[in-house]
Amino acid sequence: MKFSATVEKLNKGISIVSRFVGTRVTLPVLNNVLIATEKGRIKLSSTDLEIGITTWITGKVDQDGAITIPSRLLSEFISVNNDPSINAQLKDSTLKLNSEHFEAQINGIDASEFPLIPKLPTTPFTTLSAAEFKQAILQTSFAAALDETRPVLTGVLLRFSGNVLKMVATDSYRLAEKTLKLERKAEKDLDLIIPTRTLNELSRIIDEESDKIQIIVGENQVLFSFANTQLTSRLIEGSFPEYEGIIPKETQTKIKLKTSPFTNAIKMASFFAREVANNIKFKSTESSLQIIATSPQVGENKSEVEAKTSGKKIEISFNAKFLLDVLANITSKEISLEFLSPTSPGIVRPETQKDYLYIIMPLKTD
Amino acid sequence: MKFSATVEKLNKGISIVSRFVGTRVTLPVLNNVLIATEKGRIKLSSTDLEIGITTWITGKVDQDGAITIPSRLLSEFISVNNDPSINAQLKDSTLKLNSEHFEAQINGIDASEFPLIPKLPTTPFTTLSAAEFKQAILQTSFAAALDETRPVLTGVLLRFSGNVLKMVATDSYRLAEKTLKLERKAEKDLDLIIPTRTLNELSRIIDEESDKIQIIVGENQVLFSFANTQLTSRLIEGSFPEYEGIIPKETQTKIKLKTSPFTNAIKMASFFAREVANNIKFKSTESSLQIIATSPQVGENKSEVEAKTSGKKIEISFNAKFLLDVLANITSKEISLEFLSPTSPGIVRPETQKDYLYIIMPLKTD
Repeated sequence: MKFSATVEKLNKGISIVSRFVGTRVTLPVLNNVLIATEKGRIKLSSTDLEIGITTWITGKVDQDGAITIPSRLLSEFISVNNDPSINAQLKDSTLKLNSEHFEAQINGIDASEFPLIPKLPTTPFTTLSAAEFKQAILQTSFAAALDETRPVLTGVLLRFSGNVLKMVATDSYRLAEKTLKLERKAEKDLDLIIPTRTLNELSRIIDEESDKIQIIVGENQVLFSFANTQLTSRLIEGSFPEYEGIIPKETQTKIKLKTSPFTNAIKMASFFAREVANNIKFKSTESSLQIIATSPQVGENKSEVEAKTSGKKIEISFNAKFLLDVLANITSKEISLEFLSPTSPGIVRPETQKDYLYIIMPLKTD
Repeated sequence: MKFSATVEKLNKGISIVSRFVGTRVTLPVLNNVLIATEKGRIKLSSTDLEIGITTWITGKVDQDGAITIPSRLLSEFISVNNDPSINAQLKDSTLKLNSEHFEAQINGIDASEFPLIPKLPTTPFTTLSAAEFKQAILQTSFAAALDETRPVLTGVLLRFSGNVLKMVATDSYRLAEKTLKLERKAEKDLDLIIPTRTLNELSRIIDEESDKIQIIVGENQVLFSFANTQLTSRLIEGSFPEYEGIIPKETQTKIKLKTSPFTNAIKMASFFAREVANNIKFKSTESSLQIIATSPQVGENKSEVEAKTSGKKIEISFNAKFLLDVLANITSKEISLEFLSPTSPGIVRPETQKDYLYIIMPLKTD
């Protein structure tokens, strides 16, 4: 194998794939990134056996070949290298790298030992705007369950129905639902449950250059393809719980607030609520919302934020953390809270994003 | 106690003292900051029993008093508070805080339980430029020993002699020496050994507003006074080793280099030298310096940086980490390396700072 490429392109490629490299002692090849030439381009791949990622960069390929190289050392060599481009040449299982000021010989492991990343059909199931998909991931994945008791809840549901995609995550204490319009109707209705980690990694890699993202569905596997990158992941098997029933059909109180001071007040209350399981109380008046935290040991805190309340006044308690989670992912300057009663789930909606909904179970009020 | 102060001043004051607060369960009052009124100002103090710090802020004092309050909660209440000013009032052992949008009642511990910070004489032993002292700390303290086998080496020596202050730190593998000119001759020659942590915390607090720093010396204690802040620390007892003997009197090789590419090359070599105890080799030519790392397992790396060599050519090996430590604290664009032989200590000097010297023991070259 012999090729050259700019440091900038190598750097970007390595930074995309290097996140999926472990530091396992049992299977050292998983600590390595696969470097191979393919149809005149340079292919970089890594996998942790659950997620596999491949990105292609352009360069000058003089001789085809493949090798796997310790990912960390390669990243470091490239990130400190401030020369314009690097030449690479494989000799036996040693990759020789050289640029104007730097030379390296890195011992690799034969490419044949690298695990195969599953091949999937090439026909995309659907195509989405990468930027919209990224926002949908950020607004839902945090609500998924962390504990593995019910594996389906550790993932995000992607429910394709007609030309609508609903993305839903819940840990049974709160639920986030985002609705995306598809440009074209998907070929059939379909539920996919995708591991939260897969989506979070995807959201990290999607950038301005990504534009469109294709979703390709295989047997227990899903592939996301965008720009010059492909990410393959397992799917979570099982059925997602029928969640529509818990979305309140009617509410009796609607409170409109500015997002920023409301977030600040909840943050402050959360400090005082640390020893009472994050339990904070809302008390509505016509023109304001009081946020109250009381801890016998620590002390008390009360904040007041401007609000427009319509309907019945209410006193209701929530876990502050679950509110901060959603507020961190809302860009709308105003939000509304909707309640039926102190014992029914509450709704958080961004005022300018009608396609997003967050449901949160109340706590017992003293 | 009753007072009011701006959030900005309270925030700055708390951020200075809150670093010295622990999270001890055994002596809860150490998790608290002492708030007291004193001659019309508000005094904030904290201590971890080794370092004590006090800062004063201006405000409106209506009634004198004192209390200790959990530091973390107070910091949080103030940092999230975006109102202009806060009113504080003590009732029994509860501090009531209120501002335009926020109220809090924080349970405190009686001020009488707060450990006394030792009182020192008020006459300063000497006065220094705070900015110069900060730089001297940054350029020496990293070279002090981390392990406690020889306690004197865990501190930085401040040697006052005539109108000169030498600051010296060594872990016996490398040594840093900075020379400062005093504006006025100190009243007597004196050696102080100050814990590295004290100096590092001091360097963090010293900012543009600090201007001059007074050093006040007591029985086993030292006090640094600057702006509205006083930091008290224990001194390390014992005699600092006579270090002058290890500074080479003559050298046979002098190599002048640009700091930035040299640092880069050492950084890169350090990645390849990780499994060979950071051992990297220098090889000089007339117009360049080669930096080489060889690891049987990982591979090899060779970099070449421009250099002006006068005197004998040399091959010599060092611990890359010890070089990166000093290079991170040199602002000079050029440095010089001076060597007598491959088995004698090497010298690193910034070209534009003749008051600074770094000695480093060579490693065995293969």
